[in-house]
Amino acid sequence: MLMRSLFFSSELQRLRLRCFSSATPRVLKPGDVLRKARYFTEEDVLQYSKVSHDCNPLHTDAATARGVGFEGPLVHGMLVASLFPHIISSHFPGAVYVSQSLNFKFPVYIGDQVISEVQATNLRENKNRYLAKFKTKCFKNGELLVIEGEAMAMLPTLTMEQDHGKEQ
Amino acid sequence: MLMRSLFFSSELQRLRLRCFSSATPRVLKPGDVLRKARYFTEEDVLQYSKVSHDCNPLHTDAATARGVGFEGPLVHGMLVASLFPHIISSHFPGAVYVSQSLNFKFPVYIGDQVISEVQATNLRENKNRYLAKFKTKCFKNGELLVIEGEAMAMLPTLTMEQDHGKEQ
Repeated sequence: MLMRSLFFSSELQRLRLRCFSSATPRVLKPGDVLRKARYFTEEDVLQYSKVSHDCNPLHTDAATARGVGFEGPLVHGMLVASLFPHIISSHFPGAVYVSQSLNFKFPVYIGDQVISEVQATNLRENKNRYLAKFKTKCFKNGELLVIEGEAMAMLPTLTMEQDHGKEQ
Repeated sequence: MLMRSLFFSSELQRLRLRCFSSATPRVLKPGDVLRKARYFTEEDVLQYSKVSHDCNPLHTDAATARGVGFEGPLVHGMLVASLFPHIISSHFPGAVYVSQSLNFKFPVYIGDQVISEVQATNLRENKNRYLAKFKTKCFKNGELLVIEGEAMAMLPTLTMEQDHGKEQ
């Protein structure tokens, strides 16, 4: 717990988030962790509701959300989980998603600071491409694990591109 | 295979898609299947790219997609998979998503007709709510299984609401 607290101290976190923006080419190895920070706005939730057609009132109506014990409207779990393919494709453009498992453990509210990470656990060459297996986790407000699962993706290369994707 | 072909004939399909719009209250039972049809437009993919920040060129650049053997830009798998919570929450507003597994078996292209379905496999009462387990499947263009997995959701009731959600 102490290590985790240290790990999530703001200075270390900033350094770790920065490390994949260096100009040095990096090659993905088992154990490597890629992260991205984001918070979701009311507008994000509205736009996601529109494009997914998912109008569950838990995401838009504070009274409904509070009525079932939540603090306020929830960000759609599948929107939070979209951070996983986002992280992978921002480092490996052209990556093809093969599978994803998701356990939604705690709610994510509008404005929560989310840190999403994928950790490479297995890499296997397959016809000049690479089948990569990742542990996938989202933490909020420091260290609370809100989503946990695994993903597999077919990567065109193991050499990582700099991440030019936007973060909030 | 014959049964599946019959099942997906357009007339039966229309009847089955309609059956959950009837005014008769229905109570979810193990084995029940809920479905929704949709196709995704270029604008949907663009809007999803914006809200998810996932700008993988496979979804927006036909040349990149064709370069790796696809017929054209792919719809994000997680956008197609958003149909599962959409189906559940349109019949059970206030449903809380607990888990989802997803195996992406074949690509979904812009304009493909997708039929998404969730089949209740287990229902368990839990503190005046219901933990429901579903098999989740997406088919395209008739009978090709493109996404397969399982979901769990906590439902406020087993009585289904009419589905007023939009379909394309």
